[in-house]
Amino acid sequence: MIAKGEELAEKIREISVAEFFEKNRHLLGYENPTRSLLTVVKEAVENSADAAEEAGILPDIKVELQQLGEDRFKVIVEDNGPGVPSSKVPVAFAKFLVGSKFHRLRQSRGIQGIGIHGAVLYSQLTTGKPTKVVSSLGNGDPIHEFELMIDVAKNEPLVLSHRTLPNPGGWHGVKVELEVEGRYVDKVVQSIPEYLRQTAIVNPFANLTFKGPNGTSLTYKRRVEELPPQPKEIKPHPHGVELGLFRRMLANTSARTLLGFLTTEFCRVGRTSALQACRLAGLEPEQSPRKLNGEEVTRLHQALQSLKLMAPPTDCLSPLGEQMLLEGLKREFKAEKYVAVTRPPSVYRGYPFQIECGIAYGGELTEPVQLLRFANRVPLLYHQGDCALTQAVKEVDWRRYGIPQDGFPKAPMVILLHFVSVWVPFTTEGKQALASYPEILKEAKLALQDAGRSLSRYISRKQRLKERQARVDLFERYAPELAESLSKLTGKPKEEILAYLRRRLDEEKG
Amino acid sequence: MIAKGEELAEKIREISVAEFFEKNRHLLGYENPTRSLLTVVKEAVENSADAAEEAGILPDIKVELQQLGEDRFKVIVEDNGPGVPSSKVPVAFAKFLVGSKFHRLRQSRGIQGIGIHGAVLYSQLTTGKPTKVVSSLGNGDPIHEFELMIDVAKNEPLVLSHRTLPNPGGWHGVKVELEVEGRYVDKVVQSIPEYLRQTAIVNPFANLTFKGPNGTSLTYKRRVEELPPQPKEIKPHPHGVELGLFRRMLANTSARTLLGFLTTEFCRVGRTSALQACRLAGLEPEQSPRKLNGEEVTRLHQALQSLKLMAPPTDCLSPLGEQMLLEGLKREFKAEKYVAVTRPPSVYRGYPFQIECGIAYGGELTEPVQLLRFANRVPLLYHQGDCALTQAVKEVDWRRYGIPQDGFPKAPMVILLHFVSVWVPFTTEGKQALASYPEILKEAKLALQDAGRSLSRYISRKQRLKERQARVDLFERYAPELAESLSKLTGKPKEEILAYLRRRLDEEKG
Repeated sequence: MIAKGEELAEKIREISVAEFFEKNRHLLGYENPTRSLLTVVKEAVENSADAAEEAGILPDIKVELQQLGEDRFKVIVEDNGPGVPSSKVPVAFAKFLVGSKFHRLRQSRGIQGIGIHGAVLYSQLTTGKPTKVVSSLGNGDPIHEFELMIDVAKNEPLVLSHRTLPNPGGWHGVKVELEVEGRYVDKVVQSIPEYLRQTAIVNPFANLTFKGPNGTSLTYKRRVEELPPQPKEIKPHPHGVELGLFRRMLANTSARTLLGFLTTEFCRVGRTSALQACRLAGLEPEQSPRKLNGEEVTRLHQALQSLKLMAPPTDCLSPLGEQMLLEGLKREFKAEKYVAVTRPPSVYRGYPFQIECGIAYGGELTEPVQLLRFANRVPLLYHQGDCALTQAVKEVDWRRYGIPQDGFPKAPMVILLHFVSVWVPFTTEGKQALASYPEILKEAKLALQDAGRSLSRYISRKQRLKERQARVDLFERYAPELAESLSKLTGKPKEEILAYLRRRLDEEKG
Repeated sequence: MIAKGEELAEKIREISVAEFFEKNRHLLGYENPTRSLLTVVKEAVENSADAAEEAGILPDIKVELQQLGEDRFKVIVEDNGPGVPSSKVPVAFAKFLVGSKFHRLRQSRGIQGIGIHGAVLYSQLTTGKPTKVVSSLGNGDPIHEFELMIDVAKNEPLVLSHRTLPNPGGWHGVKVELEVEGRYVDKVVQSIPEYLRQTAIVNPFANLTFKGPNGTSLTYKRRVEELPPQPKEIKPHPHGVELGLFRRMLANTSARTLLGFLTTEFCRVGRTSALQACRLAGLEPEQSPRKLNGEEVTRLHQALQSLKLMAPPTDCLSPLGEQMLLEGLKREFKAEKYVAVTRPPSVYRGYPFQIECGIAYGGELTEPVQLLRFANRVPLLYHQGDCALTQAVKEVDWRRYGIPQDGFPKAPMVILLHFVSVWVPFTTEGKQALASYPEILKEAKLALQDAGRSLSRYISRKQRLKERQARVDLFERYAPELAESLSKLTGKPKEEILAYLRRRLDEEKG
């Protein structure tokens, strides 16, 4: 066997993460030309919005799409964010698994360090062209212009050119230009214009402009001149940290004692809880966290799991709020009735999260129900059937609120659900659907039920008014005949009886 | 802005691919304890089967599950494969994106270099324990016993121990032992026993044994003593190679001329096609492939796309064959009728693939239809709703074949679909569903239709027989009365008439 085993082993090679995604690009949302073009725009817009918001800047984001051939486009996305220092531009755009957000627990649109890199890879794979990145920090920093590709076999950035230009105006921000294979569609749900429209609904503090092919042009002006409160970064909650990660945290901590480790590296672990955990695990609070053996690590982990601890803090979340939800819906949909609910924060796997729900009902809306799903202010346009938010809509008993149902509720309405968290459990790297954690499902249903109750008051009042109007109409139709019959029976003049009946009707109406 | 931009940039860090999967373990199939336990078994079994088969060994695979606590198990999987050389064991098991199969186009169960590494990571994450790997190449090689973990922050193997033991018997193979959090279920479709049963159906040349908790014990003996023909490795087909990859192939080739490059690095490009491509692109066949500029690369790529080339060779595929399909179904399901179809090979994105379909009908089977999906001899138990194979079942018009339908066909039957290819387009790294490429969908439907037609002949014959029997039954019931009436009408004796009627009936039956 030796020969065979050795021979097979010679084939064992490393695979770079860029090669992996090149061969599996559908995992990142590049599965067909239409979706691919949308994904490129989406990744760039999310990066821009995150950067501006984190720097405390009201985002101005410009998206432009130039059609270069039947299935070829140049995508240009420019923001007014803080810019990326020139030394970091190559890795930030052209090396997979590099990012600023993965190692923090903080609400943001992107997290994984894969998004914009995927777009750069897709561009070079389909058109062979480098991505142009223009960036400046403003305030004395020149404008840096890069042409970048990814060295796929090594997952390292290739800088094809880097030149600096004067920046007298002090411009700051990032502008990316990618040439890609794609197909442009509009007037459908899974399109770039619809993505931008939905983005505008949940990002009321952003200016969004779009220039598309065939002279399409869209502008979404910001509706509020203030950013939402900055979401805070939090430490992990002990109940959401699994043993393997716990062990790594112990090995990497700069704390010198167990007590120090427990009280500084986690949220909701105070001195009392830390001492209690040590006692339960039979460990000294003063001992070094780096010297525990495997058995001791397990005991300490179990002790922490068994403690009653406060839920993680929730000021790390920045929901949109009921007022903003209502305004967003009112601006985009002509309905008769709007309701909105922001649920209190809750927790899954130690991560705080929050659900918001808005409903627009009736008016110019038509059936079937349109469901708008969002995670951390990002619209989710694909994989609706797989998403916990969709499941929640189906599991609510809408008949209770006077709305017929066949899986989905059947009514002329738009339902908006917004999931906000420090960590979004996407079912794939394509980031289009949420995994069905029971806690998420439950909160989403509660939000829908709250909204459903508000809506049902409106619907039943409307129903009552409709029934009353039907009675009035019926009366109006038969009153003259009735008056005539009564006149014959009583001998009183028909006009007098009719006048009496009308008075009664007016009283009823009043 | 500088300060802010610099400050944000300081947070830009590399993420190891192991960290990525630790935080996103649901992407690899570790989303809940039940599925996680199955995924660990699945990854180990697939590795074992691939290794043995590639070395030309009839696989003997032993799976054992020891319950150590309410939600804790030891998973042991042992094979009689060629073994892994001791120098390669650490990377082959404890470093993500290392594998022997990613860079080849060859039909195999695993491809990505992620599977078994995910199991090792899941084990250390949930129980903090190292994975034990025992391996030998036999034939003079001692037995190597490793305890391995993954250094998650670096994605590098940690060798906790390595000792060698005498191997007088010349044992060769691999045995892995992983301690994991999990939940064991049986008697449901998404269970380890069902996974092994389905594996046995499409791997008739393998011995599979299972020792589970509560004294469960299963044995699937091999039904054939011969391996299927070894699938051949093929070169990529030009029509399936995108521009970016084409450029990399040009840069990395050892060929000295374009002509050499085109004729040796691709399948189905002979001298004539290669010369034609060069001419179309305005390039010299003798020029160095490494010195083309971007424009020339694009022209050559386009020229290749425009050439009519033969479809890729299909002897690289190793389907099960109709005979094996029938035998597999017969052994596992007590039905009245079995049909099987192996479609001729076809091509998607330049990759050859083939679809097989088997149906077992009636007998002890009950509704609803059970769908068994397979890719390269591996059962797919999750994400049925998302899979191209499921979509194909729904899109076939079963009523044509005498089978009622409500989305799925409604009949007491089992449908087996097997996708065989050098590259499997899974929708997630969890490897449970196929992406809906139009070519795959079309072939799967054709396979189902072929099988449906065979089945419909049986069903309609059965239906005719049933109707005839109903007529006979009716006659038997009314014949005496009829004879009596006729006797009264004609005066002939009742017995004579009855005898005549029975003779007619016998003729009808005959």
